[in-house]
Amino acid sequence: MSEVLEVRRRAFSEVTALVAREPGTFDAVVDEEWTIGGKPNGGYLLAILGRAAAAVTDHPDVIAANALYVQSPDPGPVVIETELLRAGRSASQVRARMQQSGKVCVESLVTLSRLDPDEVPYWDAGVPPMSDLPYEACVALSGPGPGGTHVAIFGQVELRLEPEVLGFGAGRPSGRGELRGWLSLPEDRTFDPASLLFAVDSFPPATFDIELAGWVPTFVMSAYVRALPCPGPVRVMQRAHLIDAQRVDETCFVWDSAGRLVAQGTQLAGIRLG
Amino acid sequence: MSEVLEVRRRAFSEVTALVAREPGTFDAVVDEEWTIGGKPNGGYLLAILGRAAAAVTDHPDVIAANALYVQSPDPGPVVIETELLRAGRSASQVRARMQQSGKVCVESLVTLSRLDPDEVPYWDAGVPPMSDLPYEACVALSGPGPGGTHVAIFGQVELRLEPEVLGFGAGRPSGRGELRGWLSLPEDRTFDPASLLFAVDSFPPATFDIELAGWVPTFVMSAYVRALPCPGPVRVMQRAHLIDAQRVDETCFVWDSAGRLVAQGTQLAGIRLG
Repeated sequence: MSEVLEVRRRAFSEVTALVAREPGTFDAVVDEEWTIGGKPNGGYLLAILGRAAAAVTDHPDVIAANALYVQSPDPGPVVIETELLRAGRSASQVRARMQQSGKVCVESLVTLSRLDPDEVPYWDAGVPPMSDLPYEACVALSGPGPGGTHVAIFGQVELRLEPEVLGFGAGRPSGRGELRGWLSLPEDRTFDPASLLFAVDSFPPATFDIELAGWVPTFVMSAYVRALPCPGPVRVMQRAHLIDAQRVDETCFVWDSAGRLVAQGTQLAGIRLG
Repeated sequence: MSEVLEVRRRAFSEVTALVAREPGTFDAVVDEEWTIGGKPNGGYLLAILGRAAAAVTDHPDVIAANALYVQSPDPGPVVIETELLRAGRSASQVRARMQQSGKVCVESLVTLSRLDPDEVPYWDAGVPPMSDLPYEACVALSGPGPGGTHVAIFGQVELRLEPEVLGFGAGRPSGRGELRGWLSLPEDRTFDPASLLFAVDSFPPATFDIELAGWVPTFVMSAYVRALPCPGPVRVMQRAHLIDAQRVDETCFVWDSAGRLVAQGTQLAGIRLG
């Protein structure tokens, strides 16, 4: 019976597909499987907006995207409106808005350019040290999250954590506020700038490694895409800095399987601690 | 004659003042002294937008703000348009746009709330170590920047760097990509959430500590305000992580004089290296 119960893995290109409605306006469908507790992942929503922004410019690659999460959409149809703010020679700038039933869900500002696959980093001494634990040595997350939350997205992507940071699952967080591991897409597709916008928000809150709290809703997120990744899964590190006034900031670093830093994210989220 | 030549220091509240034109729309004047090489400081522009956002909500304090720099305005009149996206109980979300002569200059997304002066941090083990060098031991920057750029803003705010990171001025950057020091406002005014949006962009590029390049224009910036600072100057650390494809990301940490982390910033900028 397992093949009946098993949910089909849907390619990232499929769950972020756009249908042009009129110039600059698109229809999309938020997939019910790319959710946590029934709510769509925020990075996934930003990726849909990033694709819409790319569709209205001559620049294919998102290099920076900010998201303001106004109201979580339900899985199902959404409308994306874009406004081209500047079409430059080397970069374009777009405002993109996701609405559902006439209500603003996510507002975003997107910068696009063309990433050169032959580019090499000039200076990277400020990048934190990357873990060297291989993909196979990490543990795939599955089953419900804390409090029994149904994490449907674990049936779509493979998210693996290093054994050392798995303590939170057994009530023994390390206290460091840092999660490390790997992420791969359905069908092991190669990451691109749009799916990297998902990658920077794909991990559980780094605060799980401090103290388990309930839902940690992202208020705002900012992502930079620095390079085109090579094929294969990406290595992810999610780190918390400060919990103050029931808010936490987290940064995320994403490396491709060859060890190149390809994306960075920062977010401010709410947390019921303190 | 010196009093004739000396430029009057203008309070931050004065250079970010708004005049309501119609509901949600404001006139402002970008001050010619809050500039570097004739171009207004980006954090200063975001602070004007933050004030406009606060003026259309019941929440006085910016806690997060993203800026997309589309086109630098010239010093002089600008128009700020706001759109209230959500007025919640504990927070409000606003889109704010700065225009000059009908052209979009800066687009921003602002989250506002009310910061409680009695709040204390719950967990801060992820914050990088703060320098302990006192204000008096740091060196005030003045005179032209690299390439002879006129930095008018040095006549308005006092920006002091630790002697150890001053090497770039003599052609001897440390290579670490990190600048540390202090910032104070005209008349030593206490920082507030709006002026902290300036603080996170007040320092020279951290890349000066790697290799001097020409102008390092900010493409996007994101700032979080974490707490209300105590009176006095603020301590600032600006750090670069990666230079790749002629772009650099920098993060900024701002502490008040009592050592509390009060603001954080991240930006992606262009750089002619590599």
